Amino acid sequence: MQFTSDNAAAVHPAVWKAMMAADAPDAPYDGDALSRSLDAAFTALFGRECAVLWAATGTAANCLALASLVPPHGAVVCHREAHIEMDEAGAPGFFLHGAKLLLADGASAKVTPATLAAVIEAIRDDVHQVQPHAVSITQASEYGCVYRPAEVAAIAAVAKARGLGLHMDGARFANAVAHLGCSAAEAASGVDVLSFGFVKNGGMGAEAIVFFDVEAAKVIRYRRKRAGHLQSKGRFLAAQILAMLEDELWLDNARAANAAAAGIAAAAPERLLHPVEANEVFLTCTAAERAALRGAGFTFYDWGPDAARLVTSWDAKTGDIAALAKAIAAL
Amino acid sequence: MQFTSDNAAAVHPAVWKAMMAADAPDAPYDGDALSRSLDAAFTALFGRECAVLWAATGTAANCLALASLVPPHGAVVCHREAHIEMDEAGAPGFFLHGAKLLLADGASAKVTPATLAAVIEAIRDDVHQVQPHAVSITQASEYGCVYRPAEVAAIAAVAKARGLGLHMDGARFANAVAHLGCSAAEAASGVDVLSFGFVKNGGMGAEAIVFFDVEAAKVIRYRRKRAGHLQSKGRFLAAQILAMLEDELWLDNARAANAAAAGIAAAAPERLLHPVEANEVFLTCTAAERAALRGAGFTFYDWGPDAARLVTSWDAKTGDIAALAKAIAAL
Amino acid sequence: MQFTSDNAAAVHPAVWKAMMAADAPDAPYDGDALSRSLDAAFTALFGRECAVLWAATGTAANCLALASLVPPHGAVVCHREAHIEMDEAGAPGFFLHGAKLLLADGASAKVTPATLAAVIEAIRDDVHQVQPHAVSITQASEYGCVYRPAEVAAIAAVAKARGLGLHMDGARFANAVAHLGCSAAEAASGVDVLSFGFVKNGGMGAEAIVFFDVEAAKVIRYRRKRAGHLQSKGRFLAAQILAMLEDELWLDNARAANAAAAGIAAAAPERLLHPVEANEVFLTCTAAERAALRGAGFTFYDWGPDAARLVTSWDAKTGDIAALAKAIAAL
Amino acid sequence: MQFTSDNAAAVHPAVWKAMMAADAPDAPYDGDALSRSLDAAFTALFGRECAVLWAATGTAANCLALASLVPPHGAVVCHREAHIEMDEAGAPGFFLHGAKLLLADGASAKVTPATLAAVIEAIRDDVHQVQPHAVSITQASEYGCVYRPAEVAAIAAVAKARGLGLHMDGARFANAVAHLGCSAAEAASGVDVLSFGFVKNGGMGAEAIVFFDVEAAKVIRYRRKRAGHLQSKGRFLAAQILAMLEDELWLDNARAANAAAAGIAAAAPERLLHPVEANEVFLTCTAAERAALRGAGFTFYDWGPDAARLVTSWDAKTGDIAALAKAIAAL
Repeated sequence: MQFTSDNAAAVHPAVWKAMMAADAPDAPYDGDALSRSLDAAFTALFGRECAVLWAATGTAANCLALASLVPPHGAVVCHREAHIEMDEAGAPGFFLHGAKLLLADGASAKVTPATLAAVIEAIRDDVHQVQPHAVSITQASEYGCVYRPAEVAAIAAVAKARGLGLHMDGARFANAVAHLGCSAAEAASGVDVLSFGFVKNGGMGAEAIVFFDVEAAKVIRYRRKRAGHLQSKGRFLAAQILAMLEDELWLDNARAANAAAAGIAAAAPERLLHPVEANEVFLTCTAAERAALRGAGFTFYDWGPDAARLVTSWDAKTGDIAALAKAIAAL
Repeated sequence: MQFTSDNAAAVHPAVWKAMMAADAPDAPYDGDALSRSLDAAFTALFGRECAVLWAATGTAANCLALASLVPPHGAVVCHREAHIEMDEAGAPGFFLHGAKLLLADGASAKVTPATLAAVIEAIRDDVHQVQPHAVSITQASEYGCVYRPAEVAAIAAVAKARGLGLHMDGARFANAVAHLGCSAAEAASGVDVLSFGFVKNGGMGAEAIVFFDVEAAKVIRYRRKRAGHLQSKGRFLAAQILAMLEDELWLDNARAANAAAAGIAAAAPERLLHPVEANEVFLTCTAAERAALRGAGFTFYDWGPDAARLVTSWDAKTGDIAALAKAIAAL
Repeated sequence: MQFTSDNAAAVHPAVWKAMMAADAPDAPYDGDALSRSLDAAFTALFGRECAVLWAATGTAANCLALASLVPPHGAVVCHREAHIEMDEAGAPGFFLHGAKLLLADGASAKVTPATLAAVIEAIRDDVHQVQPHAVSITQASEYGCVYRPAEVAAIAAVAKARGLGLHMDGARFANAVAHLGCSAAEAASGVDVLSFGFVKNGGMGAEAIVFFDVEAAKVIRYRRKRAGHLQSKGRFLAAQILAMLEDELWLDNARAANAAAAGIAAAAPERLLHPVEANEVFLTCTAAERAALRGAGFTFYDWGPDAARLVTSWDAKTGDIAALAKAIAAL
Repeated sequence: MQFTSDNAAAVHPAVWKAMMAADAPDAPYDGDALSRSLDAAFTALFGRECAVLWAATGTAANCLALASLVPPHGAVVCHREAHIEMDEAGAPGFFLHGAKLLLADGASAKVTPATLAAVIEAIRDDVHQVQPHAVSITQASEYGCVYRPAEVAAIAAVAKARGLGLHMDGARFANAVAHLGCSAAEAASGVDVLSFGFVKNGGMGAEAIVFFDVEAAKVIRYRRKRAGHLQSKGRFLAAQILAMLEDELWLDNARAANAAAAGIAAAAPERLLHPVEANEVFLTCTAAERAALRGAGFTFYDWGPDAARLVTSWDAKTGDIAALAKAIAAL
């Protein structure tokens, strides 16, 4: 029973079906009918005009999104535990040609208007210092916590007041929307460009970069090709994304994963290091306790010496969750 | 009946099957059993030790391969019509951090020892000039022509004599091997790193970067992640590649595509702009003639004002080829 | 008697004097009074508003200038023998983060509207190809030939028609203006950003980057610092440039160098490979003839197996020129 | 009386004299006799073989030095208040093609073996994380504090144990050596590459990059030209450096600046924020007190709301220092 990563989960049958249906000759790259329909599909979902590009990975999606906001001599302000800082091998430095990440604090890997402002205000408007051009936030955060629409709006206000763009890393955007119970548009209000993740939520290898500034997407089409991310059989990426949007599959899958996480969390509320709002559970857990859980057949990551990270997926089995909850409660 | 691109062709059923079989939990990224078996599979194929990384696109494969040979202040010598020069949106400049491409001549988009040497010898060993660090050749070339093993060896000798690495862009390596009737090892003799293509030959979105210098692969693992090309469900890429290697499917598919091209070529040998050795046919063809072919239901690219490019795929239908051959003969 | 390079010439006494006068405490970097007066000085010279940054080298000046026009995924069209292509060690690729140089033909290293258009029109408006964003021309050219104002205007028209910026590498701009007998403004008409050289013309280590688009300079101030080119004692660079502008010293020096070259050229008009319009003379000259000249005490560069390059400086001595002319005539 | 920056100080007469003596024709770039004598001069100074390149600025010197140690996908560990992090406009990101700076703590802007180890050990050996390749320390530190030879050795040991290179930013290396009373070699023991500053110490625009790994310098010659830092009249940079080395002028100047700082510090030991070991004094100082000092004719930088930074130069006048000391004591 694996709780190491939502990346280890299966591909949803509807995604498979859509991919197989896409296996007919069409224009290469993103000239096919499916790829060309993405703009309309996301425009309908968000209720405002979008331009949408697919990319195979969240790292590529994040970095291409940021490339629309930040010049090589600029900087992105993000949380010091943000994925772009911690887990992308320096990809922002590569895609942005050496631009910096400036690190802000905040509980549960969420920045606040105050922590952002503290970073921004410390920078003199002076050529000796790297100037921020964008803010990037993660929805849900690296600790599975969700920004409320009012929080996003307040962050957007700080960004706009200083002329900075706002990027949202939505690798788990679906889980955040599922938690909030609001619309996708409300969960991304004030955002300029969103990396909308599907791979962790039942897809195989396709994320959407959603540009609310339609002009910005034009330049990024060149950047995507230049980064080797314009797949020649792009119809298979578009098919995955469209299948996820169909009948709100993305929301259903996220709800299932969130429910599984909630089930685990309920077993040991006193162990929780962060509120469980999406599909990640961080538990205090000794080495002996972790060994006990592993002995019972559960796999997961250690999170430092005294904690464990458990991630649930769209296809979590009710029985597995119950078994895990029971095992945790019994520790 | 489409002859525009082998990228428009279908995914081979064996590839689909392997992908579906890979849809079970395993380690994310390239920690899964399939990805970990690639080194052994290619070591067996080439009869010498290899380290192999997957990447979704030929552009990524080429540029990551070159990144193992060329520092930012260096250059790659390639044909002036090479894909890396003409069709990759400047990706080598991106992945190599501004390194240059130095352009050599040669019939049918094949460089020769003499044309390479002409480029290399014109460069003074002086900090004012960008020094070459690698040679890149395309097998089969952009005009569907194949380097004989002795030609590759002679080019490798020029490269080695000057301390340059040798990269082979094998987007259509399978077609080249099928034409040569030799082993994969013989077709890539003297090569340091090979981009071995599968997408144009029945795959969906997976190419192999084959490092014959096993140490070089270690650095490129970091570079791949940093370029956003380390897919989290990498097992699906490895599955495609392994399926293509199984029972020489890659060779069978290439033979089928080559045979289709030969069938077209035979219909109008006097029109051929280049020898037809792989799966591409370049024909002199007036605008009126092209209109006639299109009127008969064939799609393809114009190649300048007086020619057409026709590309055949692994799944070319015998009837379609016969119909096209007949239509060309009747022009 | 050295004719190898105008870089080997002395620093003009007026430049020394200005530098010593600048040796009083003032604000560091470019906050000093001299640096702050550059905008006005060049605005007066060109009769239109300019923003001006100093840089120590022509390579830095050219590349920072181009950085104001070309994004990382773009290209610059220049002559295939342009200094930025041949002699700057790939600096444009570094400063422009991998942007390409696209090479145009033309006699005496001068591009023409037709040769530019041939390059530009061959590029499809397609993400697979690197799109040009600027044209760069060298005034005087690498072979010492000068663009007439009407030629520059025609090139600017081609550039503007396609939305491209126009950069002028003016390492020998002074020599060109001296030859044309027109104003600086006329010699740079239609240009967006000019690298105005002083080092080869009596300066020590200061060139001016003249932005006719004042906004563009703002970004390049960050880029200059980021490239390590914001010297902390910038007053010494500004002093050099201001000294050169004073009383048209730049023109006087260029006239002297041009006259010296003309004197050499007159000795052997039948040997000239290019018209002598600035301070460079390219002569057909056998190895034996070159040995004879060197035996007589003249130093210069070979230019391939059958020619010589002789460069004159602002401080060329009349007697040396006469001696060289005589020696050439006697060959 | 300016105490804002040692960059505002005058150029030493011996430096002027050496520059004027260099104003005779010689080979351009770094082919002149002076530039070619640098290796020997520093080899003599350090008592071990060095290869030395000049560069106009400390930023260029630091970044070219680091480029010899760190690949684009790597990182440098430095203090979070290091000049390369805070004041170079992202230049390391530019010269290192996106490599990261990883930030360590430590009192008075000095890292310790423990703070370095804390950063390094937190990084998993995993392609998702940027791996450190070098450590950079500043001698004297950004707060004017000096690493003892044993401290440098202990840091070097941490670096070597993990295979990291060690860079020393010696913008004020002379002040550090003057304080330590040891040899230059002892102050840089264990260092792989040193940026040896002269501009703040009586030079005009020349720093030395001292490579103790002679091979590493070869690549950086290409990098320097590519960064536009190979000045064509390089003899004037070499002349400055050689003049500074002559008769230990660098040490004399540093001693004078240090003594001036010590004189200020002695006036108000209870106000010192950091030990005064070089030529910088950081004082607690209210806004009113700063206004009073400025009213008395002293210029300097605020250092946050409650402190002031005063920097002394080689040419500090005894009377000015006494006046300032008196004014501070009287606050």
